[in-house]
Amino acid sequence: MSSLSTLFAPRSIALVGASDSAPWTQLVLDGLDRVGYAGDLHLVNGRGRTVGGRATVTGLAQIGGPVDLAYLLVPEAAVERALGDATAAGIRNIVVLASGFTEAGAHGAHAEQRLREAVVRSGLHLIGPNGLGFVSPHDRVALFPPLARRSLPPAGSVAMVSQSGGIAAEALDLFAATGVGLSLLVSTGNEAGVDVAEVIDHLVGDPRTGAICLFLETVRRPRAFLDAARRASEAGKPVIALKVGRSAASARTVAAHTGALVGDDRATRSAFASVGVVAVDSLEEAVLAAAIATTVPPPAVPAIAAAGISGGACSVAADAADRYGVTLADLAPRTVAALSTVLPSFGSVTNPLDATGAAVSNPAVLEHVLTSLRADPGVGLVLAQVPIPVDGTGATTAMLDAAARATRPDPGRAPVALCPGSAYGLPAGVRERAREHGLPILPGSMTQVVRAVALMSRWWARPHATAVSSPPSVLPRRDLDEPWSEEDGRQLLRANGIPVAPATIVTTSAAAVAAAAQWDEPVALKLVSPHIPHKSDVGGVHLGLVGPADVARGFAQVAAVLADRGEPPCALVGPMRPDGIDLIVGVVRDAQWGPVLAVGLGGVWTEVLDDVSTRLLPVDVPTVRTMLDDLRARAALAGGRGHPPAPLHELAQVITRIGDLALALGPRLTALEINPLRIVSDSVEALDVVVTLAEPGPST
Amino acid sequence: MSSLSTLFAPRSIALVGASDSAPWTQLVLDGLDRVGYAGDLHLVNGRGRTVGGRATVTGLAQIGGPVDLAYLLVPEAAVERALGDATAAGIRNIVVLASGFTEAGAHGAHAEQRLREAVVRSGLHLIGPNGLGFVSPHDRVALFPPLARRSLPPAGSVAMVSQSGGIAAEALDLFAATGVGLSLLVSTGNEAGVDVAEVIDHLVGDPRTGAICLFLETVRRPRAFLDAARRASEAGKPVIALKVGRSAASARTVAAHTGALVGDDRATRSAFASVGVVAVDSLEEAVLAAAIATTVPPPAVPAIAAAGISGGACSVAADAADRYGVTLADLAPRTVAALSTVLPSFGSVTNPLDATGAAVSNPAVLEHVLTSLRADPGVGLVLAQVPIPVDGTGATTAMLDAAARATRPDPGRAPVALCPGSAYGLPAGVRERAREHGLPILPGSMTQVVRAVALMSRWWARPHATAVSSPPSVLPRRDLDEPWSEEDGRQLLRANGIPVAPATIVTTSAAAVAAAAQWDEPVALKLVSPHIPHKSDVGGVHLGLVGPADVARGFAQVAAVLADRGEPPCALVGPMRPDGIDLIVGVVRDAQWGPVLAVGLGGVWTEVLDDVSTRLLPVDVPTVRTMLDDLRARAALAGGRGHPPAPLHELAQVITRIGDLALALGPRLTALEINPLRIVSDSVEALDVVVTLAEPGPST
Repeated sequence: MSSLSTLFAPRSIALVGASDSAPWTQLVLDGLDRVGYAGDLHLVNGRGRTVGGRATVTGLAQIGGPVDLAYLLVPEAAVERALGDATAAGIRNIVVLASGFTEAGAHGAHAEQRLREAVVRSGLHLIGPNGLGFVSPHDRVALFPPLARRSLPPAGSVAMVSQSGGIAAEALDLFAATGVGLSLLVSTGNEAGVDVAEVIDHLVGDPRTGAICLFLETVRRPRAFLDAARRASEAGKPVIALKVGRSAASARTVAAHTGALVGDDRATRSAFASVGVVAVDSLEEAVLAAAIATTVPPPAVPAIAAAGISGGACSVAADAADRYGVTLADLAPRTVAALSTVLPSFGSVTNPLDATGAAVSNPAVLEHVLTSLRADPGVGLVLAQVPIPVDGTGATTAMLDAAARATRPDPGRAPVALCPGSAYGLPAGVRERAREHGLPILPGSMTQVVRAVALMSRWWARPHATAVSSPPSVLPRRDLDEPWSEEDGRQLLRANGIPVAPATIVTTSAAAVAAAAQWDEPVALKLVSPHIPHKSDVGGVHLGLVGPADVARGFAQVAAVLADRGEPPCALVGPMRPDGIDLIVGVVRDAQWGPVLAVGLGGVWTEVLDDVSTRLLPVDVPTVRTMLDDLRARAALAGGRGHPPAPLHELAQVITRIGDLALALGPRLTALEINPLRIVSDSVEALDVVVTLAEPGPST
Repeated sequence: MSSLSTLFAPRSIALVGASDSAPWTQLVLDGLDRVGYAGDLHLVNGRGRTVGGRATVTGLAQIGGPVDLAYLLVPEAAVERALGDATAAGIRNIVVLASGFTEAGAHGAHAEQRLREAVVRSGLHLIGPNGLGFVSPHDRVALFPPLARRSLPPAGSVAMVSQSGGIAAEALDLFAATGVGLSLLVSTGNEAGVDVAEVIDHLVGDPRTGAICLFLETVRRPRAFLDAARRASEAGKPVIALKVGRSAASARTVAAHTGALVGDDRATRSAFASVGVVAVDSLEEAVLAAAIATTVPPPAVPAIAAAGISGGACSVAADAADRYGVTLADLAPRTVAALSTVLPSFGSVTNPLDATGAAVSNPAVLEHVLTSLRADPGVGLVLAQVPIPVDGTGATTAMLDAAARATRPDPGRAPVALCPGSAYGLPAGVRERAREHGLPILPGSMTQVVRAVALMSRWWARPHATAVSSPPSVLPRRDLDEPWSEEDGRQLLRANGIPVAPATIVTTSAAAVAAAAQWDEPVALKLVSPHIPHKSDVGGVHLGLVGPADVARGFAQVAAVLADRGEPPCALVGPMRPDGIDLIVGVVRDAQWGPVLAVGLGGVWTEVLDDVSTRLLPVDVPTVRTMLDDLRARAALAGGRGHPPAPLHELAQVITRIGDLALALGPRLTALEINPLRIVSDSVEALDVVVTLAEPGPST
């Protein structure tokens, strides 16, 4: 039993501050009625007045028996005292409805801090403040005012946890409209006690929950959140999160190029990806993805088959698969042969398969089509766009029976899901008949279902935890507090098996010319300064220099740029490297999530196109491979247009070593950036490296 | 009166081939009942048997009065004869339900061809074959079998035309579920007679229609379609199209379904953009965009304000605006001051605006908030996420009255739309009360509504037709049939005011060395061959050559590549150009749509990232500016990272001239490609041009 089990399934509830002077008490009572609550209920009204015609007590002490949960309806100013009373009465589970805490300014923040201290002191399970409560359909408990004016969704296996009460109410509508079964809905509010991580932990152990949807405005305990999400994923329960705030301005100091690439939203998405959290862009996507996760088992093969009763619907499915990156299986010859026997002459066997109206008028055709598709070893999941008739005639029953036979779970064959409906929810009659017949129904249009399959595919294909056994990183034998030169960075890379292009640091024109003479011309000359991350923006990069005059002119320009900034002349001289494919590989420390690895392609284009893949550290080689696959520009690595295919395994190894090195440098590392990491044929080489360390201070 | 007015509003209908042996007749009859058809109805059964208990006639000749429309329920084999009978009886409007025509193979294609001939011969308005018919709620006519088992949407101002009957049926569900009012639904099928273009033309003149949704598998008369769509747009009626066939798999399905070829997706999108057709990715987007178009007038300012009753909903709106590129207005100080007076202390004035629960509990707050936002001169449209209560109490009525006052149309102020609902449709009670109160309701979640606003914003901001008065293009004084050399292309560009980098064509090593000596070194040497479009793939591009030996070596390599292919040595030698921003500008002839102009950035990256903007020719300078804005890589033109901002106006002029030139070269032009068109500081210069002309033949 999770420690929150009693919180979400109380058999004795006290409504503290019950009153007719505001609508809240009646809303809570109506919600309890709607869900069929059958436990004990006590109304506490300080003046002993009846509420909604019910008798009340004047204090918790007057209640004879034990109370599992107190729902505090009192305003902010009275919360602290009511909480004290509840604690004194031995009540451990509390919901605080009142707003006016941290979200309302300094005074509220102080009040909330006192709540937090009380939670710890008394070992409370407290929801809120500014939280609406919860709905637990299986347990027939709902302490959630918006339910009073809404439909109750069916009990089921999808949980929803929301930091916003308004969104929790909207989600309730969504579950009710789509018929997706709800295991638990929680509005956590300001999370002075129970937070999202703790609810996830509870749900991991809840056998009635198969998928967990989240609406997040912030993550208060990042490490606890990641641990809980990882445990959920390992338990086969996907965590599907809508995190808002992508447009919020980042407060991070942009120390290096990578810092600009890794915004707050990107860092959060990296963190999610690291533990298998599925990030979605809307509540509708979240609920539909969860419906898929709890309706069909994980496909054995990452390819789908789709069937429909109209060519139009099949085209829609094909376009959606193409748009969202879902693979349509090539049907095996045996499958094609089996299907050819039942389709009319004008139906051709393709995937998606237009089963034509014959699949509606003749149930045997429908059954044969679905049975053939799911038996194909190259098919991992079958999506069938078939209407579920609701008219209750004999023909209809035969059709539903055929669908039930064709979709029955069978571990040896691909699962089948039916997509009967319009995007805007299914008529209640359709849902009821589907439930009666045990049909696996997905409530969305084919476009939306394919999109949700694409989201879940990332989770189904998530790399499973491996024992990473990379060699330990070699750290510099030097004091990190000493000034960190460009050459130090280059030596550090070399010591850790990361190839680095040859180059010499110079501080005079003569040294630059001498250095250039070491190599075949032409040479490159680049400004060196820890304070100028974007050298090309200030004329600090000179390429293709030929002859002493050219080199000296380049050095003079670099020196002038530095002199303007009061810095001593310093440049790096090295041979021009052959053209290749350039990557940027960087690590930055995110204030919330810790070190984040970013990989992008193509120098200036990475930033312009915002095409970068990120993960929390540590990463292993398979994870880095998936990062490279995530890039829109991944085709550039496949070769063509004058370039051979990139050595992906070596590349992933080098990037993994960069990540390991950054981790080994510890919390002082602000940024480690290699830009570019150049791929020429089968070699990978760092051309430039910047290491930025935080000033030492009492906090590090 | 459009020539199709009687087709869609018949007052006398004959169902030819009416029978109880298949469900179709009863479905059509049930649909007519559902819509409340009150005109004459005649059932024709060859054997005179009753159908559904109704009397029949054995032939059209037996019907005494005039018949406006014949709906043919007969199978494919009997269609030709039934059509002959109908024509003989003087009936001009026909629907052919039967399938088994072009989509079923050669035999069906021949039958369909005979239908097409009959249509022309007899001047018929014929829907189908393989078309289900139509629903016309205003006229209380429905000849559409799927309606029998579906809800009838309310009559309204959005039309839906679908080439797929299955999708037409799905759309009917969508209109009914969302409550969006329907003016006309047509399933056009194989379009042997009436096609999408003709229906659009009809709808342009239909005062009850304000927006037109299309589901397209193909476009049979591209020019007529574009003309009709342009007229609709000019009449203020947006055409919103879901065109399937973006993927190869889908193209197969469409071919199987209708026997029609699917044009290239990109060419189709260019064509749509050229005439203001709004391209969408799903049926749900189409209907929601149409709902917006018919609910709110075009905003005067391209920026929105959003208000909600929960912080969560506001965050969702902000993220959606960021994701889909909708501008959130900066509120004027006066607006901020006005809002500050009504919000509780913990509500801060931002956009989106969290009006908190106060906007629900106090109708005056809601009215004040919306009235203040719409009065802001920087706001073009106000979206308000407020629930519409359905409990019918006095407080509720006050709230609805306040919403009605705050949203009343006012030409001097921004329009307001309410987004009360979950994504999965609104409860019928909400819709009814909204209609009673005349509230402008958008049926979708805030995410979906913002996405649809983004789609409509393109239409609202469409460039209006201008008299393009570009100078006539200068054509070569030469016979197009003669071989077309690289130098010919370069001269052609120069003659048309398109700057071209200097270079010399050489065919010997000595000439290459001599040419190189004309310019400061280093030089570039590129292979010239009309048969090798991607020179860099074969080692045909040598850059930075210094000295006679280098040049001779480069020429030898190029000559060897050409010799391998049996081609004579030929190369272009010119000075190295400074680095800059490279564009690719090309014109290709699409079989369906004609010449298409494509603009992309960055050589190899354009292809890798599939980042290209396309339009049908001709284009004008403002259109080319919007093409550049469409590129994901547009930020590269804004300057930074060592590049000044690109000279956008000059660039657009050069690209427009390229388009004009391609058009002037006439239908023989297969492709004209400039790659790269290089921007260095404020200059724009073509570095390479390829012109490909079709072989002359009897057809050109």
